[in-house]
Amino acid sequence: MRFDIITVLPGLLESPFAHSILQRAQKKGIAEIHVHNLRDYANNKHKSVDDYPYGGGSGMVMSVEPFAACITTLKGQNEYDEIIFMTPDGETLNQGIANELSLKNNVIILCGHYKGIDQRIRDLFVTREISIGDYVLSGGELPAAVLVDTVVRLIPGVLSDETSALSDSFQGELLDAPVYTRPADWNGQKVPDVLLSGNQSLIDNWRYEQALERTKKRRPDLLK
Amino acid sequence: MRFDIITVLPGLLESPFAHSILQRAQKKGIAEIHVHNLRDYANNKHKSVDDYPYGGGSGMVMSVEPFAACITTLKGQNEYDEIIFMTPDGETLNQGIANELSLKNNVIILCGHYKGIDQRIRDLFVTREISIGDYVLSGGELPAAVLVDTVVRLIPGVLSDETSALSDSFQGELLDAPVYTRPADWNGQKVPDVLLSGNQSLIDNWRYEQALERTKKRRPDLLK
Repeated sequence: MRFDIITVLPGLLESPFAHSILQRAQKKGIAEIHVHNLRDYANNKHKSVDDYPYGGGSGMVMSVEPFAACITTLKGQNEYDEIIFMTPDGETLNQGIANELSLKNNVIILCGHYKGIDQRIRDLFVTREISIGDYVLSGGELPAAVLVDTVVRLIPGVLSDETSALSDSFQGELLDAPVYTRPADWNGQKVPDVLLSGNQSLIDNWRYEQALERTKKRRPDLLK
Repeated sequence: MRFDIITVLPGLLESPFAHSILQRAQKKGIAEIHVHNLRDYANNKHKSVDDYPYGGGSGMVMSVEPFAACITTLKGQNEYDEIIFMTPDGETLNQGIANELSLKNNVIILCGHYKGIDQRIRDLFVTREISIGDYVLSGGELPAAVLVDTVVRLIPGVLSDETSALSDSFQGELLDAPVYTRPADWNGQKVPDVLLSGNQSLIDNWRYEQALERTKKRRPDLLK
């Protein structure tokens, strides 16, 4: 799977894509992540990518032209399944959307900044608008990194233990049960006896009960 | 405001904290962000911070001791208002939580990895558990960066134009209206006439109508 991310802050995305799962997926050749500097597509002498909003108001608006130029260049080189704009008013990302996107081949992600991007970019180029949650961030870069991370780890071959992704929270209907590791007694704080019992069916039952209880208490909406 | 972030992947967080708003807030002395390598607190010869889960199952569990050692060290140096664990089963981050946290002084953020952290860390040390959304990520680092970004930009003095944060999506009850900037005509795609009219009350009305319509269509839940 190939991601082309268009941003005014390419440097911000350097370290998230150079570690952990995203680094491993790229080394294995399962994912390609290309970060493009929007300013390289600005066709004016100041390399400016934004301007004042029509109609007044605070903040700057990102212009049509640089995004259009970058997207057009990319489309000349690859076929894209989706052109995604990260925006707080998009559909809210969830595990179902991540699963769906993990089946795509090539995706462009646009990172907004300031007060937003010219609506014509959204109308003419964007095929999907995604929000990572109901909160405001400085720009679309962290949301883009979140989206890539959540999608890439679902591509077969990325995680070393494939069952691991399938047993994550939100892949089933319940939150995870509590987990424990050694030592069994830490300053008098003990691991529940059942987990040390060696009786797998008792353990499975306990985990199910705990997961159900945690879900009821924390996220009853997931049980509906 | 001071953030202490505890992670096994300190390098992953380098570039997000070195750009944009977060860089500016640190330069201005409004926010301090300290990233701690959990491995420096591992008290065993392999610097290991995780172990197999009691009761079996896939994935590794992060051990109590290194987190406990790091938190105890930090608490010896500062008073903390909250010790936050980023986890998909925590309360879902929203703008209200971000507003609330922006009033705190010192916060510790724990980043989990693998299948989770030993429940005893959560029971003994954590004061608040926060999720950035209903999806699974490789670790708590990107969520920590998201949380810090969304909180820091609310601290007075961080944004150059204070009205800018107040007019963001989710600070009011409506999503933002579409925005446009020059050129007024781009390859035949025109900016709505009203925005060029110079009549501010017509413009304000249009924006309100557009914001209302977009909210009704995309996020009717916000209107309840």
